[in-house]
Amino acid sequence: MEVSVFIQLKDGVLDPEGETLRQSLRRLGFHEVDGVRVGKHLQISLAEDNTERARRRAEQMCEDLLANPVIEDYQVRMKEELS
Amino acid sequence: MEVSVFIQLKDGVLDPEGETLRQSLRRLGFHEVDGVRVGKHLQISLAEDNTERARRRAEQMCEDLLANPVIEDYQVRMKEELS
Repeated sequence: MEVSVFIQLKDGVLDPEGETLRQSLRRLGFHEVDGVRVGKHLQISLAEDNTERARRRAEQMCEDLLANPVIEDYQVRMKEELS
Repeated sequence: MEVSVFIQLKDGVLDPEGETLRQSLRRLGFHEVDGVRVGKHLQISLAEDNTERARRRAEQMCEDLLANPVIEDYQVRMKEELS
């Protein structure tokens, strides 16, 4: 089963990589860019057929390792939820 | 207008960060993890009201700066396309 995990900086947390991209894009002529936030998208292949169990395990992975709960939010999406 | 850009390594391109996460997850007891691929998710705020124009501009940004077309694929999604 394929699980997508999105990890984003919480609102209000400075995002220097996003700010650098914003400045670079504007310098390249993309003057309409107001802001860029950079997050991670992890695609995890699991040997698990049960959707709810896979979701819970992926959430546990975020808590234990993948996300930093002080500054990051995460979202777990099963493949069938993504078009 | 909010645009989401997903940037992923092409199939077959080595992903050392994903491989490290896979090993770490298994070491933590998540033995069902078969593989992890790491991509970027950029959220771009644009001063542009026209959906099609915003999409084309975001695609141009990927070509010009955000993605490395040799090793990466990108996908542009308008906010209303994401549930």
